[in-house]
Amino acid sequence: MTQVYNFSAGPAMMPKAVLEQAQQELLNWQNQGTSVMEVSHRGKLFMELATQSDKDLREVYNIPDNYKILFLQGGARGQFAAIPMNLIGEKGKALYLNSGHWSGTAAKEARNFCEISEINIVEKDQNGIISVTRTDFSDIADQYDYVHYCPNETISGMEIHEIPNVGNAVLVADMSSNILSRKIDISKFGLIYAGAQKNLGPAGITIVIVREDLIGKARTATPSIWNYETQVNADSMINTPPTFAWYLCSLVFKHLIKEGGLPAIEKRNEAKAKLLYDYLNNSNFYRNYIAETNRSVMNVTFTTDNDELNAKFVAEATACGLHALKGHKVLGGMRASIYNAMPIEGVQALIGFMDKFAKENA
Amino acid sequence: MTQVYNFSAGPAMMPKAVLEQAQQELLNWQNQGTSVMEVSHRGKLFMELATQSDKDLREVYNIPDNYKILFLQGGARGQFAAIPMNLIGEKGKALYLNSGHWSGTAAKEARNFCEISEINIVEKDQNGIISVTRTDFSDIADQYDYVHYCPNETISGMEIHEIPNVGNAVLVADMSSNILSRKIDISKFGLIYAGAQKNLGPAGITIVIVREDLIGKARTATPSIWNYETQVNADSMINTPPTFAWYLCSLVFKHLIKEGGLPAIEKRNEAKAKLLYDYLNNSNFYRNYIAETNRSVMNVTFTTDNDELNAKFVAEATACGLHALKGHKVLGGMRASIYNAMPIEGVQALIGFMDKFAKENA
Repeated sequence: MTQVYNFSAGPAMMPKAVLEQAQQELLNWQNQGTSVMEVSHRGKLFMELATQSDKDLREVYNIPDNYKILFLQGGARGQFAAIPMNLIGEKGKALYLNSGHWSGTAAKEARNFCEISEINIVEKDQNGIISVTRTDFSDIADQYDYVHYCPNETISGMEIHEIPNVGNAVLVADMSSNILSRKIDISKFGLIYAGAQKNLGPAGITIVIVREDLIGKARTATPSIWNYETQVNADSMINTPPTFAWYLCSLVFKHLIKEGGLPAIEKRNEAKAKLLYDYLNNSNFYRNYIAETNRSVMNVTFTTDNDELNAKFVAEATACGLHALKGHKVLGGMRASIYNAMPIEGVQALIGFMDKFAKENA
Repeated sequence: MTQVYNFSAGPAMMPKAVLEQAQQELLNWQNQGTSVMEVSHRGKLFMELATQSDKDLREVYNIPDNYKILFLQGGARGQFAAIPMNLIGEKGKALYLNSGHWSGTAAKEARNFCEISEINIVEKDQNGIISVTRTDFSDIADQYDYVHYCPNETISGMEIHEIPNVGNAVLVADMSSNILSRKIDISKFGLIYAGAQKNLGPAGITIVIVREDLIGKARTATPSIWNYETQVNADSMINTPPTFAWYLCSLVFKHLIKEGGLPAIEKRNEAKAKLLYDYLNNSNFYRNYIAETNRSVMNVTFTTDNDELNAKFVAEATACGLHALKGHKVLGGMRASIYNAMPIEGVQALIGFMDKFAKENA
């Protein structure tokens, strides 16, 4: 079979070593004679897995002791609702920074649960190039219970590399598509959340990293599965957690540590992205419409500016084992998602194909 | 290795054939060169899986055309909150029938979202035997937007075999622990929901079967992932669904059809339960505290009425490959969960051990 490289934006490629271990022990985990997905979440062995996964994620992401880690259900979109339910307090309103599709969707959902102010923080220049216009909100942030943003817009392939300045206000980040992609200073954030299906594990589990002083303020009408205080007190097990997804996340954390942790991962991710953006910079055939300072290290978008040619590109790439390169339906074009699990060989193979396709279709 | 029989109440045993297929194709699903958990939920192949799983569940459970099936996140406990958000309408209140731990927990959660009336429908006689006292609510049900009950209380091992009479009111059932265990008349229900981790698949996916006329009434402050109308319109994909869990459910549905559908499953389940209850009826050593008419076909509870002896039983059974027989912490004693995937050989092995233990410890 052709070597396949899977550029899916999510559910995305997982580390092969993790899938191989999962396969090997799928019917007999920890010598129990049963699958990990068939055992009680409250049993000794699964509780050990849960404790270890907390410890490993803390280690690999350098999470301070005054933060709790929750493993929840509902995806990032579940948290779009859960965050206002848990964090709206005395000030009664939140500030949402809109930098594209996902930050805008988060704001839209939040409006159903609280008063918000929404600020557009991107602009498009006369050449269609999109850039972030503002990252300092320290003059206004203290009017709000929290400031929400999405540091990596998966659809457009735009990343905000600088952490916004919100003074002493609470900064909340949807890191679904760039969590664990590089070292960050967790202490700058009040809350970080992410659906697992890009850099953490399979779809169906959501990680919330929340500063202790923000816990315990949820409104009464908060579903108990999303009440941070309830879930902290229940070790994320107020109800049956998605145990198999949690198990896979735990294997991914171990894998990251084994690979050298975030210093090594970050270096590799930067090398992959540089390779692809350097190629795009030198191309007369493909274009990327994101300003250089805001290009995503995880999701690289490009287009021939011709819908028919884009469709031909995607079809021929797929036939060559380069899967899931079609851009999101709201934007079109192509998108190569090169999360942690994508090896540099995948990016090299993609560039090889892009070059061939450009020569054949110029 | 000793033959293991896993009596876990949930996450529970899955059909071995399903796990073997999942293992075999874990790294290469549908000849894609990738895992099913690595592909886009919106891609052609996964959409086909989703469509087929709807079709198969409809077939096996005989679900009428005027019902929609949703595959959601959040577990049954998520639905404890979502149901009032979606179903409370003109009448402004709901009736909750309390038959034990789970129906009581559902009522407690619902109180955070709407006005409810709660009726206790079980009683304990002077010998400690628990039975259901009432199943006809047709005289009061029309005052409420819906009537909620839990037909199988997993913890106590009590099942309400008769569908409550609520006249023309909307009946809502938490079938987490007895869904697909026998044929039922779906048309008697407005909404049926179930966490997957007992009879459907792994933890992390929740199935909601809802009559069409009940869709579209959600309050504004309903998280979009639980808004039935939004999710019906989005094929349960308003956000990334738990694709691997959904895939496993789809394999379980195929497996049930292959095994002869619910007529065959029901017969086998009744035979398993009869074997175990007949043994308990004839035992002077073990007791079950549920009235014969309300004994659960899925969860069989028993005790020696001695905590130390119970603990010894559980430890020795585990050593013999009979796993997860410890009763729920709120009740103690023992519990054998014998869901669809448990073969009759497992029940026979359990009875063999029970008999030996009784003789050794009488």
